[in-house]
Amino acid sequence: MFAAAELTDDAFLGGRLRLWQPRDGYRAATDPVLLAACCDAQAGQSVLDLGCGAGAAMLCLGLRVPGLRLAGLELQPPYADLARRNAARAGLDCEIVEGSIAAMPLDLRRDFDHVMTNPPYYPAHGTPARDPGRDRALREELGLADWTGAALRRVRPGGWLTMILRADRLGEGLTALGPKMGSVAILPLAARRGREAGRVVIRARKGGRAALRLLAPFVIHEHDCHPGDREHHTPEADAVFRHAGGLSRLFG
Amino acid sequence: MFAAAELTDDAFLGGRLRLWQPRDGYRAATDPVLLAACCDAQAGQSVLDLGCGAGAAMLCLGLRVPGLRLAGLELQPPYADLARRNAARAGLDCEIVEGSIAAMPLDLRRDFDHVMTNPPYYPAHGTPARDPGRDRALREELGLADWTGAALRRVRPGGWLTMILRADRLGEGLTALGPKMGSVAILPLAARRGREAGRVVIRARKGGRAALRLLAPFVIHEHDCHPGDREHHTPEADAVFRHAGGLSRLFG
Repeated sequence: MFAAAELTDDAFLGGRLRLWQPRDGYRAATDPVLLAACCDAQAGQSVLDLGCGAGAAMLCLGLRVPGLRLAGLELQPPYADLARRNAARAGLDCEIVEGSIAAMPLDLRRDFDHVMTNPPYYPAHGTPARDPGRDRALREELGLADWTGAALRRVRPGGWLTMILRADRLGEGLTALGPKMGSVAILPLAARRGREAGRVVIRARKGGRAALRLLAPFVIHEHDCHPGDREHHTPEADAVFRHAGGLSRLFG
Repeated sequence: MFAAAELTDDAFLGGRLRLWQPRDGYRAATDPVLLAACCDAQAGQSVLDLGCGAGAAMLCLGLRVPGLRLAGLELQPPYADLARRNAARAGLDCEIVEGSIAAMPLDLRRDFDHVMTNPPYYPAHGTPARDPGRDRALREELGLADWTGAALRRVRPGGWLTMILRADRLGEGLTALGPKMGSVAILPLAARRGREAGRVVIRARKGGRAALRLLAPFVIHEHDCHPGDREHHTPEADAVFRHAGGLSRLFG
């Protein structure tokens, strides 16, 4: 478990959500917030967050959409512990299970209406991060295909997968969806207007038959370059980051 | 062969290129022009256009980049005949071969620096177009994977494939590239700013190792809706359609 001195207390969603996060470990920034904003869960539905870390995506979603049944899988026990503490602090009832996508715990071997995931961003080889927990959160021990496969198995027929990836893994991600997933929509996330995408959110439906769609980019920052020290988010990004808005409308 | 009365005489690239095209058959519009604009061929290099139709992409490229060695494969003899006539009219020396990607003619079984292709847009099943030649140009008898595979086999090591697809086939296209192609870049083509992509241009290098890139969309029309009868292209699109400009700079 993390000692209190190892933690920071961070505000998300304009202060609606506060999270304990490890000072030197994996720290949620905007990606889990955007992931949660793209998940179209409705009150009463079940949602599984694969690799939930300290709970950022799950709790953002739970605050935006009341009445969900939330579950999270997390490999690293200190992060799972943080997710439980953060959920309690947010007043949300979440089932946090420790375990690996490589051997799905029995407690989570059921169907969910929605599965969302922010898989590790770096391939298995490369320079490790200085913090071993951060390294484990960022570096995959299993490939993206394994990760996606584990997610797909947990989606009920007609249910949805929502995932956020580095843009350079778009091809891998689409290939990994395989023939059971359809109605794919890709939302490119660009730091600034006119820039290439840094991340993509991919949404797909199990058994969906609608054509794949490549949506217009969602732009995070307002200006062409960073003016001074302040963040200048676009109004659309502010609606998500500061006002807890959703992005499902973009997916039509 | 087409009779003269079956043909129209159409201007491309601001009048730099004139093409005979079948009045009722498959008619090139903007897609082959954009495909050619994205192909980064340099003087002295060899280029193969798979499914060249009446020659629009090949001839646009040949006019923009002098000194290429141009070859085209076309399944339908009347279109191959038009491509030869259009090439002669443009003063370009092109090797047009009749045949199918399913059984590559011996004349084309060599390596090319660049392969470009605008594969049939519709899957094998569906409502046929009224004109059988147009139908054959639009509807694939082979899958996109076969089409892409035939293209890949003709690219030399270190050479490039450039293809234009309906956006909804992006997943299929990326999957079909397989492990030999890398340095993939995707250029979304959007009718208007803020709209989802209608087409994508995919560029990939045989043996390339650079990360996949999802570029900012290239926007064709200036206004949010069509004001009156005139086309209002963006300046970027005008540079291609009217001034024969290339788009390689977008790929970095």
